Amino acid sequence: MDYDALFQTQLDALKAEGNYRIFAELERQRGQFPRAISHSENTPDQVTVWCSNDYLGMGQHPVVINAMKDAVDRFGAGAGGTRNISGTNHAHLLLERELADLHGKEAALLFTSGYVSNWAALSTLGSRLPDCIILSDELNHASMIEGIRHSRAKKVLWKHNDPKDLEAKLAALPANAPKIVAFESVYSMDGDIAPIREIVEVAEKYGAMTYLDEVHAVGMYGPRGGGVAEREGLMDRITLIEGTLGKAYGVVGGYITGSVALCDFIRSFASGFIFTTALPPAVAAAAQASIAHLKASNTEREAQRQQVARLRAKLDRAGIPHLDNDSHIIPVMIKDPVKCRQLADILMQDFGIYVQPINYPTVPKGTERLRFTPSPYHSDADIDHLVAALTTLWKRCAISHAVA
Amino acid sequence: MDYDALFQTQLDALKAEGNYRIFAELERQRGQFPRAISHSENTPDQVTVWCSNDYLGMGQHPVVINAMKDAVDRFGAGAGGTRNISGTNHAHLLLERELADLHGKEAALLFTSGYVSNWAALSTLGSRLPDCIILSDELNHASMIEGIRHSRAKKVLWKHNDPKDLEAKLAALPANAPKIVAFESVYSMDGDIAPIREIVEVAEKYGAMTYLDEVHAVGMYGPRGGGVAEREGLMDRITLIEGTLGKAYGVVGGYITGSVALCDFIRSFASGFIFTTALPPAVAAAAQASIAHLKASNTEREAQRQQVARLRAKLDRAGIPHLDNDSHIIPVMIKDPVKCRQLADILMQDFGIYVQPINYPTVPKGTERLRFTPSPYHSDADIDHLVAALTTLWKRCAISHAVA
Ligand SMILES: Cc1ncc(COP(=O)(O)O)c(C=O)c1O
Ligand SMILES: Cc1ncc(COP(=O)(O)O)c(C=O)c1O
Repeated sequence: MDYDALFQTQLDALKAEGNYRIFAELERQRGQFPRAISHSENTPDQVTVWCSNDYLGMGQHPVVINAMKDAVDRFGAGAGGTRNISGTNHAHLLLERELADLHGKEAALLFTSGYVSNWAALSTLGSRLPDCIILSDELNHASMIEGIRHSRAKKVLWKHNDPKDLEAKLAALPANAPKIVAFESVYSMDGDIAPIREIVEVAEKYGAMTYLDEVHAVGMYGPRGGGVAEREGLMDRITLIEGTLGKAYGVVGGYITGSVALCDFIRSFASGFIFTTALPPAVAAAAQASIAHLKASNTEREAQRQQVARLRAKLDRAGIPHLDNDSHIIPVMIKDPVKCRQLADILMQDFGIYVQPINYPTVPKGTERLRFTPSPYHSDADIDHLVAALTTLWKRCAISHAVA
Repeated sequence: MDYDALFQTQLDALKAEGNYRIFAELERQRGQFPRAISHSENTPDQVTVWCSNDYLGMGQHPVVINAMKDAVDRFGAGAGGTRNISGTNHAHLLLERELADLHGKEAALLFTSGYVSNWAALSTLGSRLPDCIILSDELNHASMIEGIRHSRAKKVLWKHNDPKDLEAKLAALPANAPKIVAFESVYSMDGDIAPIREIVEVAEKYGAMTYLDEVHAVGMYGPRGGGVAEREGLMDRITLIEGTLGKAYGVVGGYITGSVALCDFIRSFASGFIFTTALPPAVAAAAQASIAHLKASNTEREAQRQQVARLRAKLDRAGIPHLDNDSHIIPVMIKDPVKCRQLADILMQDFGIYVQPINYPTVPKGTERLRFTPSPYHSDADIDHLVAALTTLWKRCAISHAVA
């Protein structure tokens, strides 16, 4: 059997529909963000990154850099084992305490990524709570979808950000079955924000636990960066808050927070937590430093908000349509995978602007987009340059009509 | 509904059967391995770690430490995005090239962990190859089991390390269905090594692709650390070789290697690869330095082999039974979860020897054990101290009889 031919057939299909992905090869430069060296062919040597999820530039913050290097010096490179078998380091526990405090919860549990935290927590809850039913927002992230799928629990989809539909779905379910309402605060591709209060109230009414992914909100929303639920004063009403250390906190890793019993349950039964090498102590130390910094400092959040507002205003003035939302994410809809890549290529090659075309399966087909994430480190001049480039392209191409 | 009570019930059951896990809280100290500070209650301040999977002590090697710190200085802390959306760094590609070269393959693909590489690769292959059947060694690791489960492909178990049984199973399957024979080289809990040649020959005969997990072998076996398949000259006959950067290489992360088409296929379709933040460039750089070092240096491998042989010989002389195998892993069988923990507690408290009790679900119930992994940095005196402690315990307790 020619396995390579089987693989190639599916890859060719992907190419034919314009969804084959080419990764931009960057070299980040500490202290230069959002500037980076580009190693991709036919690109300028230096580009401005406009699509990073290092939303606040914490990946280069001296507090984080120094914490990481100091920890490497003190503890070495890796953790040396799974959490159970020699891999639990003091730095992991300090980080878990920091995270529990961030979300006002009794406990926290660290994972190798946000993806694994969602996948492992939902698959464990769904498979081990007898007759559990998971009510999942229809636009939930792949990591949640896969966790639910893996659990083989009954899954009920509810309309995106629609508490009424959630209530209708909950009302139709047996009253005495365990239920989990799973959703996100900031949806990363449209940048819209969930009506958390209404969702929580519905869930409480029907005795469901709530599972909230704050991956695109932690560090950036709430007075201490605890996320949208912190900003709205709702953290204590949510059963489980999940987050990442890889986006606004600028490092890598994921976590859940909740009651002692909940975290101990996942710790004790989740395959994806148990059977894997723990994160390097230096990663934990760097993440903890980042969280602690953003608990106390509003500077980064304010500067980000300002540049987000500035880019939006300039796009409006230039007549470039973008999705309206209350977050830091600015999607410019292109609605075609091939055009989306072409535009991104021109931006990169002619203007040194790097924005990855967002195609299927990250977004549904027909909703392809360029997704801009201004950080505190994007200057006014960067914004002017971006808007000027887009204006040129909008004039140059017939695309301006297609996306109006 | 009282969710915490549901969690607590299952935790209580775990406690009642002696399988509730208590993590040792360590503080690794660069340059002191296998010594570490203990933060656990009722333990000496400093302990000797005897169960680390930092098998060669590379987690503290100056080459690795310096590569990691330099990379933090140059590139910052995190990757800043998923591989597709601004997260691909030059350091990732350098590492992937290093890995492809290590295993003599066309290409390699990096994941956040070995767990995720197994889970993502097997679930993608099993679900996307039409009518795929996965033939899995019955003792395969949790990450492979979950990947296969997630794929929902047909799964056929074959007897552990038994090519004859594999052949019988293969012969009974439809000739024209895609098949994957999935197995490990070194099984981490018994330390036994697969008959790779025989397995490969059977797989070839039936047109199955081979999927080999070398997680507990890379860095340690073969002239360049390419694993047992390198040692036996079989790498080119294996379709996919999977490994980790978190054990002998001393850092964190996982990978697969294989043909360009295979790696591109997983890269393009695996949810667990696509939808997650890339590893920090500094982790990639540290891992690459570790691999490159162990390609050229045999010192660590030789010293490890010497200390493994030494501990085995001393245990034999002391009459302490241990599983016979050809690897670096020395399991001393206790066969009871409660006794296993008690022994480990005494070793830690009275002798400053840290070895985690290995209980269910890591090993089957009734096969509980202490698992020792001597490194190049365990001195002769460390070994003498360990064997003396075990001898004392064996004399002191009735356990000596129970485990004979
Ligand atoms: C909503 C959401 N949850 C979870 C994740 C996974 O987090 P991580 O990148 O830490 O794996 C992502 C993105 O990567 C995400 O967008
Ligand atoms: C055989 C095997 N495969 C895969 C893994 C997972 O690798 P990692 O620790 O890098 O997640 C492990 C252990 O953790 C293992 O023992």
